Amino acid sequence: MSKKPLILVCNDDGITAPGLRMLISVMNEIGDVVVVAPDNPQSGMGHAITINTTLKCNPVTIDEGPQLEYSCSGTPADCVKMAVSEILNKKPDICVSGINHGSNASLNVIYSGTMSAAVEAGIEGVPAVGFSLLNYKWDANFDACRGFVKTITKNILKQKLPEGIVLNVNIPNLKEEEIKGIKVCRQAHGNWKEKFEKRVSPQGEDYYWLTGKFVNLDQGEDTDIWALENGYVSVVPVKFDMTAHHYIQKLNNWDL
Amino acid sequence: MSKKPLILVCNDDGITAPGLRMLISVMNEIGDVVVVAPDNPQSGMGHAITINTTLKCNPVTIDEGPQLEYSCSGTPADCVKMAVSEILNKKPDICVSGINHGSNASLNVIYSGTMSAAVEAGIEGVPAVGFSLLNYKWDANFDACRGFVKTITKNILKQKLPEGIVLNVNIPNLKEEEIKGIKVCRQAHGNWKEKFEKRVSPQGEDYYWLTGKFVNLDQGEDTDIWALENGYVSVVPVKFDMTAHHYIQKLNNWDL
Repeated sequence: MSKKPLILVCNDDGITAPGLRMLISVMNEIGDVVVVAPDNPQSGMGHAITINTTLKCNPVTIDEGPQLEYSCSGTPADCVKMAVSEILNKKPDICVSGINHGSNASLNVIYSGTMSAAVEAGIEGVPAVGFSLLNYKWDANFDACRGFVKTITKNILKQKLPEGIVLNVNIPNLKEEEIKGIKVCRQAHGNWKEKFEKRVSPQGEDYYWLTGKFVNLDQGEDTDIWALENGYVSVVPVKFDMTAHHYIQKLNNWDL
Repeated sequence: MSKKPLILVCNDDGITAPGLRMLISVMNEIGDVVVVAPDNPQSGMGHAITINTTLKCNPVTIDEGPQLEYSCSGTPADCVKMAVSEILNKKPDICVSGINHGSNASLNVIYSGTMSAAVEAGIEGVPAVGFSLLNYKWDANFDACRGFVKTITKNILKQKLPEGIVLNVNIPNLKEEEIKGIKVCRQAHGNWKEKFEKRVSPQGEDYYWLTGKFVNLDQGEDTDIWALENGYVSVVPVKFDMTAHHYIQKLNNWDL
């Protein structure tokens, strides 16, 4: 039996996405790789799961690597559930998600399908990390990610992660030699200023495209946004206990 | 001009859901109500947003109440974005989401479309709360919710909520006189034990239904699960800074 770690790979851009293919090639150097990824893009799916309809999941071959691959009709969270419950016959040593085409820094963690796969793995008790490159293009160059992805993955395998914590890693869109290093950060406070672009269909019906611009509302130098703007890879420990513990005492003074 | 509060109402079960209709009827007693809700059920959608396709949003009349209503083709988070950016000409005083048909206690907050609407409103700087009844049935009886929903909504309007915090309220499936009161709680630690039920289509293809059972892993008596099992309405303050702040120092000792 292999002593190499069992690595589950997922993403949200779909099984053919170049970011995923790069991630698989790095993971093949570290362990035994099983890929369970959506059969179509699932960006912005947040932590959606498929409960009112059915799922399909079938083995596929996309390239000539040693990894096993499955294409799944569901969301990133579905893919992880499917992998852990149905496909793998033991718990993976790590789940890596990505490499996402585009930032998942700051508030984007909430909308991110990439991070929902990592969080779902964390919920299942699997150490997990989501990787994202700050370049939305399909043909983005992921070369500079390779070393950082490998370093962080090996650290997780060695150090483990405590229950309830996964990592959100974002990589600036720079050449490898321009990246200054890795910084552990907190999630910057920011939001999206939305604009709905209203159009009229050929049938005369109004419809909308959601557009918007991310606004950083945080001047701290310990945030992921600061790190990325200053040429660092950002690593944020993310938890899925969403309780605002510090506010419980205050709420107890309400007239409830 | 009306001095009554402007109340945005949303949900994830869709604009015709009985839980939403009950919530509207309670809110009509408190303020001026605008409803922006999905045109079809969006349960389990997590914090999904619609970025790769278009949205429709149109005024509708469902019943004879004074509220204004819009039916939207998107997710709960889309509905809130649409309301705040396009439909309302001032920021609402509160956003209430629900009443969900089924529990959003413990980890369910992560998968919940109901809570994603509340969180999205919180991100937009609107005080917000999600209400859920522990009864999944479409014809659930929401009568016992009425008083608790009113009390909590009025408290939020009076006390406000700090930036970055929204409330997750769950109501046990009991008669009003059987409910012992309201308890402020933390999110219980638990997870879902999934089971994929495999079937074969008439065309001979394998497909799956996601099923599962929630498992409470938390013995604490300060959790939402404990409160609900003991006959209380649970109120959990939820935050959307997902940083595990306490773990940053530890990560700085890694070999990154």
